[in-house]
Amino acid sequence: MTLFDDPPGEDAAAIDLRARQRIRMVVAYDGSAFHGFAAQPEVKTVAGTLARSLERVMRLPAMSVELTCAGRTDAGVHAWGQVVSFDLPADAFATLDLDDVQQSMNKLCGPEVVIRELGPVDAAFDARFSARSRLYRYTIVNRPWPDPFLARTAWHVATPLDVRAMTLACDPFIGEHDFSSFCRRPKPAEGAEPVSLTRRVLSARWEAGEDGLLLFWIEANAFCHQMVRSITGTLVEVGRGKKRAGEMMGILRAQDRHAAGDLAPPQGLCLWRVGY
Amino acid sequence: MTLFDDPPGEDAAAIDLRARQRIRMVVAYDGSAFHGFAAQPEVKTVAGTLARSLERVMRLPAMSVELTCAGRTDAGVHAWGQVVSFDLPADAFATLDLDDVQQSMNKLCGPEVVIRELGPVDAAFDARFSARSRLYRYTIVNRPWPDPFLARTAWHVATPLDVRAMTLACDPFIGEHDFSSFCRRPKPAEGAEPVSLTRRVLSARWEAGEDGLLLFWIEANAFCHQMVRSITGTLVEVGRGKKRAGEMMGILRAQDRHAAGDLAPPQGLCLWRVGY
Repeated sequence: MTLFDDPPGEDAAAIDLRARQRIRMVVAYDGSAFHGFAAQPEVKTVAGTLARSLERVMRLPAMSVELTCAGRTDAGVHAWGQVVSFDLPADAFATLDLDDVQQSMNKLCGPEVVIRELGPVDAAFDARFSARSRLYRYTIVNRPWPDPFLARTAWHVATPLDVRAMTLACDPFIGEHDFSSFCRRPKPAEGAEPVSLTRRVLSARWEAGEDGLLLFWIEANAFCHQMVRSITGTLVEVGRGKKRAGEMMGILRAQDRHAAGDLAPPQGLCLWRVGY
Repeated sequence: MTLFDDPPGEDAAAIDLRARQRIRMVVAYDGSAFHGFAAQPEVKTVAGTLARSLERVMRLPAMSVELTCAGRTDAGVHAWGQVVSFDLPADAFATLDLDDVQQSMNKLCGPEVVIRELGPVDAAFDARFSARSRLYRYTIVNRPWPDPFLARTAWHVATPLDVRAMTLACDPFIGEHDFSSFCRRPKPAEGAEPVSLTRRVLSARWEAGEDGLLLFWIEANAFCHQMVRSITGTLVEVGRGKKRAGEMMGILRAQDRHAAGDLAPPQGLCLWRVGY
């Protein structure tokens, strides 16, 4: 049993008496090389990469650091402003130069994962449960030829898209809705209540850039699994003329995953910012 | 001997009677995966990738296509607007749908190499010798932490740079000069005259973007080998306070490569546009 395995139970009382310092990090990563954020045995994940480099830099026992993140991004999905919290033993923290820790971790984590900010935070802060909103960005390159520099961070759609229709189609998503039509429903634990897929979308809009660059920005209190990719994929079907903007409300109300369009591929998606 | 091996000599007269159509392409590529532009046996090059895919799409004999480019970029150097010319047999050209060719080539060349434009051009056009100017961009990320999305296309310089001094230091480069201090001198062929390293720089300026992004734009009639990387590396030494802006003129006049700073790494460099 190590210091940070689990929330302290009764048998951890002796250990729990030792003071801890909560730390908050803001992390950017190119998700192409990872099997998603969440730590998994045997595969390369963002959380695993961060935790192992932290243990090495801080000389902590292997597998002793556990991270909480604001949004568990899927394989191939990126982040610019992922927020992560974790605890350090207070005595280790007292002697730290946090700039050195950040710099050493950035060297160890390699070019794909970068710690933008690292600092102490109140013990009540939890990267996941304190978060009030998440802002995602989805990038599309909409022109006949793809962009070699955006191959890993954008979806190339060669067919011209009707951005005006896609913009109109955003409206029904705003507000609090059951997003069953746009989510992968998690299997409920045996005997447990089904998980709620109700979320509150704060804003959803398309931004057109140069050379056919299209950015979809969507912010919500929280997102269900695959929700942004499902909404983006459905909006692109509107842009292609396969669905009409007026159909969105009906798809949302159907609470049926088959009513929505296909998932947009993961590489266009990026967790941009988390609000607290 | 194949159709397009060499400029036609006397023994190629019979072949040369067949009409040809000159083609011009504008190509963007992520140079990370390539041993430079110029075709070389046994290694992956941009020219090799383009020529082999063209032969496959056009059903031409293997190794029959030879490309001329505006700027032979080094290993790891990128292009947004590289210009390439080559000849096709006129009878093959007459039945072509060029949009199809472009699309098929973009599928074959994979995400790293993209043909942005492809079209017929006058036989007098030569991607290299018709070019009047080349514009290069060099990208630096100047802040303590690197950018995971620019790891392959920018140089990360953590020390704060004095952009004002770097801007002042650009002035002496403008105009026609012998750039021996900033170039790798090619070995002259036996008995031949030494190659001239005189070039005419049209503009050179730094552009500061968000979050420590620095772009260096330099345009000249032509560049010698490693000239942009050598100038950029020297300007960054000015930005770090290791050299003064006032020293640039002396370094230029020294015509001695040891007078200049170290080469900036290749990944920040991109051939942006070629003027004709």
